[in-house]
Amino acid sequence: MNAKTVAFVLYPGLTPLDLVGPLQVMSGLETVETVLGVQPRHHVIVVAESLEAVPTDTPVRIAATSTIEEAPEPDVVLVPGGGAATLRQLANPVLLDFLREADRSAEVVASVCTGSLLLAGAGLLDGRRATTHWAYHRFLDRLGATYVPQRWVEDDQYLTGAGVSAGIDTALRLAARLTTDDLARTVQLAIEYDPQPPHGGIDWRGVDRDSFRPRVEGFAREALADHPVMLARLLE
Amino acid sequence: MNAKTVAFVLYPGLTPLDLVGPLQVMSGLETVETVLGVQPRHHVIVVAESLEAVPTDTPVRIAATSTIEEAPEPDVVLVPGGGAATLRQLANPVLLDFLREADRSAEVVASVCTGSLLLAGAGLLDGRRATTHWAYHRFLDRLGATYVPQRWVEDDQYLTGAGVSAGIDTALRLAARLTTDDLARTVQLAIEYDPQPPHGGIDWRGVDRDSFRPRVEGFAREALADHPVMLARLLE
Repeated sequence: MNAKTVAFVLYPGLTPLDLVGPLQVMSGLETVETVLGVQPRHHVIVVAESLEAVPTDTPVRIAATSTIEEAPEPDVVLVPGGGAATLRQLANPVLLDFLREADRSAEVVASVCTGSLLLAGAGLLDGRRATTHWAYHRFLDRLGATYVPQRWVEDDQYLTGAGVSAGIDTALRLAARLTTDDLARTVQLAIEYDPQPPHGGIDWRGVDRDSFRPRVEGFAREALADHPVMLARLLE
Repeated sequence: MNAKTVAFVLYPGLTPLDLVGPLQVMSGLETVETVLGVQPRHHVIVVAESLEAVPTDTPVRIAATSTIEEAPEPDVVLVPGGGAATLRQLANPVLLDFLREADRSAEVVASVCTGSLLLAGAGLLDGRRATTHWAYHRFLDRLGATYVPQRWVEDDQYLTGAGVSAGIDTALRLAARLTTDDLARTVQLAIEYDPQPPHGGIDWRGVDRDSFRPRVEGFAREALADHPVMLARLLE
């Protein structure tokens, strides 16, 4: 049986942990499947508009494996998020068209963090339950989805994860959904994912999800200054 | 007051989550310090032998910001790990010399996963308590340290983290150590680090830390075939 293609989307300025957390999980799944001889295998690719290394919101630059043009039809697609740089992609028809096309072939369409805003911007989450980074929850609603404050949210083929680090949990859920709980647990052990945040988890009772509103609305104005229609959708 | 330099080490074939997890935390700390006007700031760089994007153990390639030659003396250095590719660095005098030099100036010398084997290989962990990826624990002992099965281990200026995903916990501990618990918690909220592994944490009672021994010893033989003295240290 042919391997299934799992395509991660890369674009300039993204938050690299949004990409690399789930990439390490799915790449680990590919290794585990290869070692154990499991079929069908999952083959991971990273697609971008070009193969040049792109900047991220940290000092590293990251390079993809395939261009959007030459990428095969994915069985699974995952789009990571970021700050202003991700909002800028809401005005990039090449990326949004790729997501719309991937949506036609893919059995799972996934996102991490504000990547869900790109799925929503592509028109894929209308009326769907979904999640995003907590500080961007209003944008998700304004783009036609319904924000759910969970670590990840599944609505038919759409699997959306919360902010940044949630990509690891979301991808382990994805691995279990595509294969078995046992294989997902094996990958979890391989990446020694036994989290122990030094200050414990987040106490959400102390978090005002609108506390960053001026900051993220500023990102939107900066990113979409030349795209008043999309900007108005976010800030209405 | 000048910003303090936090240097992450990049080399070909590493496990990118080992690097990007803590990088996202420390880069987030830099952003938070900038927004809040906190002094001294921490300035994050990524050093490698060259500025070319290098392969990783996933499909992405990653590029550094500074060469080892031109990098300033770091105040903090962190070396990520990987599989065979990391063991290969045990025979790379350029990288080991960089770690030894960084050790002279740095207030914290840190590692994630098998990065601690490189610190030990550079002679920095002799007689020290340290940790590493669970499957590599014997190598750490053989290189002169004492393996401690904890999420992270602190022994004076040495802060070593367990496998792969432990880099996030380790870096939040590092952020708190360099600044305050409050700032570390702010970064944790920014990266929405409220982990919920879909199958729960790892049940260590069911894990034999020697179960991957043939595999990791195979990695050592492959990586160090031309370096019998170092290979014998690992496999004695």
